[in-house]
Amino acid sequence: MIDKRKRVEVCFTPGEYAYYKDEFEIVVVIDVLRATSAICAAFDNGIKSIIPVPTVEEAWAYKQKGYLAGAERKGQIVDGFDFGNSPFSYMKEDFIGKDVVLTTTNGTKSLEVAKDADTVVVGSFLNLTALSKWLHEQDKNVLCLCSGWQDKFNLEDTICAGAISDYLISKGNYTHIEDSSIAAKYLFLSAKDNYLGFLKSSSHRRRLKSLNLNKDIIYCLTPDQMDVIPILKDGKLVKL
Amino acid sequence: MIDKRKRVEVCFTPGEYAYYKDEFEIVVVIDVLRATSAICAAFDNGIKSIIPVPTVEEAWAYKQKGYLAGAERKGQIVDGFDFGNSPFSYMKEDFIGKDVVLTTTNGTKSLEVAKDADTVVVGSFLNLTALSKWLHEQDKNVLCLCSGWQDKFNLEDTICAGAISDYLISKGNYTHIEDSSIAAKYLFLSAKDNYLGFLKSSSHRRRLKSLNLNKDIIYCLTPDQMDVIPILKDGKLVKL
Repeated sequence: MIDKRKRVEVCFTPGEYAYYKDEFEIVVVIDVLRATSAICAAFDNGIKSIIPVPTVEEAWAYKQKGYLAGAERKGQIVDGFDFGNSPFSYMKEDFIGKDVVLTTTNGTKSLEVAKDADTVVVGSFLNLTALSKWLHEQDKNVLCLCSGWQDKFNLEDTICAGAISDYLISKGNYTHIEDSSIAAKYLFLSAKDNYLGFLKSSSHRRRLKSLNLNKDIIYCLTPDQMDVIPILKDGKLVKL
Repeated sequence: MIDKRKRVEVCFTPGEYAYYKDEFEIVVVIDVLRATSAICAAFDNGIKSIIPVPTVEEAWAYKQKGYLAGAERKGQIVDGFDFGNSPFSYMKEDFIGKDVVLTTTNGTKSLEVAKDADTVVVGSFLNLTALSKWLHEQDKNVLCLCSGWQDKFNLEDTICAGAISDYLISKGNYTHIEDSSIAAKYLFLSAKDNYLGFLKSSSHRRRLKSLNLNKDIIYCLTPDQMDVIPILKDGKLVKL
């Protein structure tokens, strides 16, 4: 009997995307702490579009042209920029209706490597259920692309990916075959009753906590705060 | 207070080794199904040395010179060779005291990338406790390098790595800071009461099962069958 179920798989880092590309119509880019959480929050606040760029230089060039431009490296706002990837940066009136340019350590790198997929959407805990429901309706092969930390595996993105794939598989028309996806599901099941507690020892949470970003962490790990689904169209993220 | 504990970390694939190298005095190469299990079994059977080579061509050149040479690709013995990476291949009288050459899909690749570390040893479930005790006595920084499957994450190597790091951390003089290591520990704790059951859906087990290698799988997932610790010396694996 042929298995007609679609696949939902998890890729741990942008560096491994090459082993998965071209097999999936939809790529979900995930960078829980904090790029994709900030992007979701920005659209929830009424931003018009976000132009993700891989380098600080490109972000700076846009800023010189008058764009609102943000840049984050190593968890901190890059000198000369007004904001980075804190979700709270985007919850301001003067961002409403605007086009914003953003570069971050990991998240915009994932968007860059995935940009040629048929459909690229942005996932986080903030839009977890809304996104999962929408993915289920599409009935296409889905790759959850975790951004990791400087090309290494990270826990929070993997758990978010595990949550999305667990939702799709629970609906019956999805399956997974990769060991990374099986691991993500187990890690999600271990974490789901207390994301914050589970992630207390994660490297990225420690890193941000040392930068006094605990408020950001708590916000980014609180699921289902909004229904927005950011989608990549012609190099720009817009609201679906 | 300075943390004087040594680190034990887990690297999921040979491709990611570059992000970890030079930080660890000891690298434990793991390819549970089946290269490092076969290597342990070979030394337990009295083999003198194993020369790991990355390519089939190199293995063939040794064979032409009269060496016992094995080659495995995609789980099967390469045409023209007498054996691959089944542990049972090495349990023969005519292997005792011999130098053997071996190339495999994943395991010999890990040995190749790690060869410049101060100390490279071979780990598997077969020598799990003996190796863990020895590592603990060394009191040096340890990296568990999983071989994965064609540069992707795999479950069985990760769980074996999690078992080694759980042992070292339980002794009090080791810690880990990488998310990959935390994940490996959680996956080991989920799997430890029933490795075979936990891994029933893993991609590599499915792959080998379809090749009728279930006997090999059961053997490779049964811990503590021997005390040997294979170690790399001048490009050859020998018994410590």
